[in-house]
Amino acid sequence: MSQPKNAPRGGGADPPVPQAVVGRLSLYLREVQNLLRMGRETTSSTQLGALLGFTDAQVRKDLAHFGPFGYPGIGYRCEELVTAFNRILGTDQDWPIALVGFGNLGRALLGYRGFHQQGFRIAAAFDVDPAKVGTQVEGVEVYALDDLARVAPELGIKLAILAVPASSAQAVADILVRAGLRAILNFAPVTLSLPEGVGSVSVDLANELKQLTYAVVNRPTNP
Amino acid sequence: MSQPKNAPRGGGADPPVPQAVVGRLSLYLREVQNLLRMGRETTSSTQLGALLGFTDAQVRKDLAHFGPFGYPGIGYRCEELVTAFNRILGTDQDWPIALVGFGNLGRALLGYRGFHQQGFRIAAAFDVDPAKVGTQVEGVEVYALDDLARVAPELGIKLAILAVPASSAQAVADILVRAGLRAILNFAPVTLSLPEGVGSVSVDLANELKQLTYAVVNRPTNP
Repeated sequence: MSQPKNAPRGGGADPPVPQAVVGRLSLYLREVQNLLRMGRETTSSTQLGALLGFTDAQVRKDLAHFGPFGYPGIGYRCEELVTAFNRILGTDQDWPIALVGFGNLGRALLGYRGFHQQGFRIAAAFDVDPAKVGTQVEGVEVYALDDLARVAPELGIKLAILAVPASSAQAVADILVRAGLRAILNFAPVTLSLPEGVGSVSVDLANELKQLTYAVVNRPTNP
Repeated sequence: MSQPKNAPRGGGADPPVPQAVVGRLSLYLREVQNLLRMGRETTSSTQLGALLGFTDAQVRKDLAHFGPFGYPGIGYRCEELVTAFNRILGTDQDWPIALVGFGNLGRALLGYRGFHQQGFRIAAAFDVDPAKVGTQVEGVEVYALDDLARVAPELGIKLAILAVPASSAQAVADILVRAGLRAILNFAPVTLSLPEGVGSVSVDLANELKQLTYAVVNRPTNP
């Protein structure tokens, strides 16, 4: 696997880029891809900031983590940004994904079009329910969780989406780690304990809602 | 509605608390609730930090935004934290929610147990598909989107979960704003343009995955 050119290397002298900045980089990528689709060839920190609700200084500071991208008098070239951002984020590669837990949420995630649109592909699903194991849904086979250590390497799977109940999340995560998976998108409302070298991002939907209730009760216009 | 005691007031002199801190506050709440369930009466910044992977200094700094909580020689009292955090976040109130868009993802969100466990209640669903309108799923009625402006105030709904395709997300968000909703949890991979005073949090699942691919390709142990 070649090292992304503009990305900081973990083994190098650069400090790691904060996760929040990486999160914003994928937002920038999404917006530049939209601009390209609309036929725009160039963009600017002001335009990107306006599209995402950031200041142009914030945009420039974020992008400076990854390299010099702008041209005087021109701004940013959209195609160049898309290529560079995809390389930095690793999304210029194929990432077959294991969907672990095939309940209500897992099933919906399988059908979630946003993954396909962004080049992600769910390659296999895993569950402990014998009634689900062996079935095929939208062309994806549901395997027994016990088969994960065999199937994941066969399919080149390094990423997992964990959509199991909170009570079993850590035990299933341990299975994923032993199977050699490298990163987990965790939907269970627990903080996973993972070894160094295994990445994770948590999506706790109730927590997101609490940010909204906070915003409503703390707003200046609150009656 | 009473003003949360320890929360910064938008109209007051305090600067607003950064959204990232508010996000962490709901994580602290979740962990303290777990500790209470396990019979613990007190906790500490060290323990909370260890549970969430933060330094104890980070925990103390975050909590200092909302008030003095600790007792010398004791630490934090769990019950007191839960009560205070719920009041600050607004989760000591009932928040009936509109689920807008009743496709694959909407249906899964209706069944998502994490919402119920955290006191959120989906009070009504809305869709434009005549085949869905008028049905009841898990005790929740599916209304026509056209009825939202009438139904939402009747049910006291101020929050919406937006689970519609990207192409219609802004138009539907405009309908929510006109109906007087105050905050939107947005699952469509677009940045919504909303008037001042309407809060939003976006959950872009493909973006979350990109944080993981970034972590994998930029890890020191990367082969």
